Amino acid sequence: LLVTWAGIGSTAVAEQTFSDRPEAMEATAQQSFIGVDGNRFVNEAGETVIFRGLAFSDPASLLERGVWGRGYFEAAKSWNANLVRIPIHPGHWKALGEKQYLSMLDDAVRWAGELDMYVIIDWHTIGNPLTGVFHGPNYITSRDETFRFWHTIANRYRNNPTVAFYELWNEATNYNGQFGRMPWGDYKAFLEDLIWMIQKIDPKVVPLVCGFNWGYDLRNIQREPIEAKGIGYVVHPYPQKSKNWDYDWEQIWGFAAQNYPVIATEFGFMREDEPGSHNPVIGDEVYGEAIIKFFEERGISWTPWVFDPLWTPNLILDWDYTPSTHGAFFRQKMMELNK
Amino acid sequence: LLVTWAGIGSTAVAEQTFSDRPEAMEATAQQSFIGVDGNRFVNEAGETVIFRGLAFSDPASLLERGVWGRGYFEAAKSWNANLVRIPIHPGHWKALGEKQYLSMLDDAVRWAGELDMYVIIDWHTIGNPLTGVFHGPNYITSRDETFRFWHTIANRYRNNPTVAFYELWNEATNYNGQFGRMPWGDYKAFLEDLIWMIQKIDPKVVPLVCGFNWGYDLRNIQREPIEAKGIGYVVHPYPQKSKNWDYDWEQIWGFAAQNYPVIATEFGFMREDEPGSHNPVIGDEVYGEAIIKFFEERGISWTPWVFDPLWTPNLILDWDYTPSTHGAFFRQKMMELNK
Amino acid sequence: LLVTWAGIGSTAVAEQTFSDRPEAMEATAQQSFIGVDGNRFVNEAGETVIFRGLAFSDPASLLERGVWGRGYFEAAKSWNANLVRIPIHPGHWKALGEKQYLSMLDDAVRWAGELDMYVIIDWHTIGNPLTGVFHGPNYITSRDETFRFWHTIANRYRNNPTVAFYELWNEATNYNGQFGRMPWGDYKAFLEDLIWMIQKIDPKVVPLVCGFNWGYDLRNIQREPIEAKGIGYVVHPYPQKSKNWDYDWEQIWGFAAQNYPVIATEFGFMREDEPGSHNPVIGDEVYGEAIIKFFEERGISWTPWVFDPLWTPNLILDWDYTPSTHGAFFRQKMMELNK
Ligand SMILES: [Mg+2]
Ligand SMILES: [Mg+2]
Ligand SMILES: [Mg+2]
Ligand SMILES: [Mg+2]
Ligand SMILES: [Mg+2]
Repeated sequence: LLVTWAGIGSTAVAEQTFSDRPEAMEATAQQSFIGVDGNRFVNEAGETVIFRGLAFSDPASLLERGVWGRGYFEAAKSWNANLVRIPIHPGHWKALGEKQYLSMLDDAVRWAGELDMYVIIDWHTIGNPLTGVFHGPNYITSRDETFRFWHTIANRYRNNPTVAFYELWNEATNYNGQFGRMPWGDYKAFLEDLIWMIQKIDPKVVPLVCGFNWGYDLRNIQREPIEAKGIGYVVHPYPQKSKNWDYDWEQIWGFAAQNYPVIATEFGFMREDEPGSHNPVIGDEVYGEAIIKFFEERGISWTPWVFDPLWTPNLILDWDYTPSTHGAFFRQKMMELNK
Repeated sequence: LLVTWAGIGSTAVAEQTFSDRPEAMEATAQQSFIGVDGNRFVNEAGETVIFRGLAFSDPASLLERGVWGRGYFEAAKSWNANLVRIPIHPGHWKALGEKQYLSMLDDAVRWAGELDMYVIIDWHTIGNPLTGVFHGPNYITSRDETFRFWHTIANRYRNNPTVAFYELWNEATNYNGQFGRMPWGDYKAFLEDLIWMIQKIDPKVVPLVCGFNWGYDLRNIQREPIEAKGIGYVVHPYPQKSKNWDYDWEQIWGFAAQNYPVIATEFGFMREDEPGSHNPVIGDEVYGEAIIKFFEERGISWTPWVFDPLWTPNLILDWDYTPSTHGAFFRQKMMELNK
Repeated sequence: LLVTWAGIGSTAVAEQTFSDRPEAMEATAQQSFIGVDGNRFVNEAGETVIFRGLAFSDPASLLERGVWGRGYFEAAKSWNANLVRIPIHPGHWKALGEKQYLSMLDDAVRWAGELDMYVIIDWHTIGNPLTGVFHGPNYITSRDETFRFWHTIANRYRNNPTVAFYELWNEATNYNGQFGRMPWGDYKAFLEDLIWMIQKIDPKVVPLVCGFNWGYDLRNIQREPIEAKGIGYVVHPYPQKSKNWDYDWEQIWGFAAQNYPVIATEFGFMREDEPGSHNPVIGDEVYGEAIIKFFEERGISWTPWVFDPLWTPNLILDWDYTPSTHGAFFRQKMMELNK
């Protein structure tokens, strides 16, 4: 059974005992584990925790631009974030390679933990897992690759309190049919299989599940919720996704907060004339006030997109972390609301 | 949401607005759209259109041999073809890359349109989509790749009248079981899912569906037709596929022309002693007359295989487009029958 | 239909007649074919054959270490083996390439036949075929690749008496859930589809099927046996897989020998302090005597793992084929028991 791999090209791996699991990262921070109690995220003392933080850029992209490092996390902390979301594009995961990517994630988890922030690891794909049609090349993955990704991540960060959340599939969408059929029951079964595996490996993590329409619409869970315990639901409520905000938001996803913990892992706004602006993100502080009020009334956690000057809606203007209008707005909210 | 891809290796893509679809080719020709009415292909005036044209070689192969260009299309037009079929091998699609392939297809569509010929785009695979076993390396594809191919093609040529047909899967076969089980119901469901997606993207195109036995046998549709509107069926009736031609042809696929538009996208003949001859293509003008009579009596459209001096049965002898015996025969039929 | 592939990169293949199947290796040995009769492997005269041989290393690894050659097979013969098992890791299969790998397997089959030994070809993966999660990179494969592998192998060695067995999937395991859900019914259907295809191509070979828990547990076949004729079951009964050997072995896999031919294609022992030792292989001659007695009482065939000084439990100490303790033990048993 024990094999020293002979090392033909890329298939070579180190010597491995067959009863060994993949190595876990050693936990470096003393944070409380986060769990689920009813519709709340709770710490080990059973106290409700509301997360207000930042959606980061893909570490591989930050690395390439020379801006990956502890300073990025320190800046988030200086904005009073208590959670950061790390998006991993399937294309970047393959291009950089698992080994280097995990090494970067280990750094991320250590830095976040030292600064007492929590981490969401986000499999940053957009598309239909049932047909394999995606919103562009960097989002392409497969059922098998998704299982292997989460197998690797769950082993690496099992029992690590800093990594509190796994966002299983960034945005599920069949683009009004253009990515092929996507019946909720089949998507649901796929996620339930993923969650079942993850909870066998890492029973203390909270898997996060998004609905359809680019992670906007949770109405399917009214009749057919994900059959799993200890999970949360995700929503990406950009300003132009609905017109009658309060009413529509309640009907389409806000209702879920009555029964489950909910977290908005992407949202935000920018003016139409700012570079990179596009439907559905066009908005202003009126939207900002409305969505934060809506979240806070329901105990919904949130991380606006995106802590980057280039990706949009950009929360910063430069690598001195100068806030954009959008960024200044949410920075102020974190300063006020995170105790 | 808006991301300027950081450009790690091959995953880099251009800046893209998330609400944007892939860019469509601009239609350059003023041809009528082709639709389906009962068992006929019809133009926008509702008039029956019978297509008599030519099955081309793979553009990537023609490019490599230095013979890809407008002249190839002009030669087809000089034979009086009104339709050309462009086969895309999955191996060539991957080897050449989507970007270059689409650029060549754009040229093809423009040239065909300018010459008032229509185009079939053909996903030129041979094998069993349910097990992933194929008739040689160049035919290997997957369910996911097939969905992505048609997603790309349908977006590119949506609402383009020249590209009238998508031939979804060149030849379905499990080679008498040697490619594994291939239940009709599962194959049918796969095609219906493809058609559903395609019609969401490009509702005016006519998807074409082949039966089993290398696209020869349509009998499964008697009890279990493809559940979709606006499609046509394909047949590849080479001479040696049946012995009692008229009787067998009617039983095995000709019956379909009573209820659906049918098109023979591959057929033809050559003598046993000609280079490249092989079962099931051995035949002569007796077969030629019989099959054309059979088609014409039923309003079946046709494109004999193959407009190439090297692939067989070859319709031409050289790149001066000198007709072979086979080629001269069908050239004459197009001259007589296409008005 | 006939295509001379134009030769774009790796997709180029030789000219091929469409009615041709992949070329089969010419049989070089005059051995009797092996079949199944009730719970016995039998030769063409209907006589029971018990196989006692050796589990080899992956040819690609032996090649890389410069020790691949006829001498390896001659050494096995000098130990009185009548069967050798050749494990092919999916990673090595891809790294070396099908063409070179088949050429090496042709040599292997010729050498084994000349020495009157039989061959098991073993698709040496470990993991869950239903999720695509595997026990390390070299074991990664897919449903499609597995079908293509067996399509290739079955065509290559169809009707070749030396290649008596195809071990379809070395070790099925979901690692206590860490590789995701693996319902027996779905795994069973996957294997039945493989066997159906293989028997269409190579009806004289004996497919071998393993159970769960790294090929240890066959209890699922009590209620839901594989629905196929002419197959055998595999077990990998390393010493630490059970505590109450005779009792547990009978309950977990020994019972199967009442109704089916059974072969232990991996087992063996080494001391805890020997290099490369690991759970579940730690044991000594007490285990050796117990397991051989258990096999022989039930007519179970066997090939201990592994004829290699580096992989463990190693049967040899060096490339002079000096037996280890483990190796000397099983060598002596083959000398006594193989007539
Ligand atoms: Mg093993
Ligand atoms: Mg954790
Ligand atoms: Mg997004
Ligand atoms: Mg069109
Ligand atoms: Mg054989």
